[in-house]
Amino acid sequence: MTKKHILSILVDNEPGVLSRIAGLFSGRGYNIESLCVAETIEPNVSRITMVTKGDSLILEQIKKQLNKLINVIKVADLTDQEFVERELVLLKVNAKTENRAEILRVTDIFRGQVVDVGLEHFTISITGDAHKVTAIMNLLKPFGIREIARTGSIAMFRENQAK
Amino acid sequence: MTKKHILSILVDNEPGVLSRIAGLFSGRGYNIESLCVAETIEPNVSRITMVTKGDSLILEQIKKQLNKLINVIKVADLTDQEFVERELVLLKVNAKTENRAEILRVTDIFRGQVVDVGLEHFTISITGDAHKVTAIMNLLKPFGIREIARTGSIAMFRENQAK
Repeated sequence: MTKKHILSILVDNEPGVLSRIAGLFSGRGYNIESLCVAETIEPNVSRITMVTKGDSLILEQIKKQLNKLINVIKVADLTDQEFVERELVLLKVNAKTENRAEILRVTDIFRGQVVDVGLEHFTISITGDAHKVTAIMNLLKPFGIREIARTGSIAMFRENQAK
Repeated sequence: MTKKHILSILVDNEPGVLSRIAGLFSGRGYNIESLCVAETIEPNVSRITMVTKGDSLILEQIKKQLNKLINVIKVADLTDQEFVERELVLLKVNAKTENRAEILRVTDIFRGQVVDVGLEHFTISITGDAHKVTAIMNLLKPFGIREIARTGSIAMFRENQAK
């Protein structure tokens, strides 16, 4: 069964770990849709957040292999859990005089921020889940998106409210 | 000379590319501080944004090797350019009754958003450059940060305003 999965993996912050982990996926022809890796509070531990789409059985095998890697501390699959997901996107959009007001309105509605302005462009930063990002991209596409940089999703379990 | 570098690399969206690129860095013992990879507007092209710290001469060699890889479309080093840099961070912070008002004040000042609330925690989303992220983390640390997920930086050239 093909399904979108979000994995959160704690690893030692050492050269070679990312390459090995990415290699486990590509070795099985399993594409990574997006991936972020950065330090946590402990500078020697990094967290990898990965969004993949593919066969759930193969992913189960990959997760077993991940757990066997010596630099992998913990693997969490958030897919069937309650979680908060967010992504950051920078969009450089054509902004001619006649379109500037409309682009700013769209940016406002999506609680985006203009982080750079030129005579003929805006660079806009947007935070949201995958749906929100797709929605604003579709609205801005007609103006001409010159460039895009996305972080890919990060995610966190929602804790049981009753605890 | 050891220096922080931000690289923006356009690559074919294919299994194996990320592992090979990460391997080029780790093969030279060059650690990647943070990395994001996600699709661009063209679904067959992904953008990798990478923050590294290390010897500039070695990085020059790595960049040459990157440019030789068949799945690498373009390598841009933003380090000595004018650029916009942003990172997204999710922080799960202990929030006892007596601390809630102060945590919300700090979140407000940094234009963060509370994205999940529990009886004893907040999950806060923050967008900013590395300095801002470090600043809010230092302010929230005394309350107890339970968990952190960072995307690592994405970046975009500032265009020449006179164009």
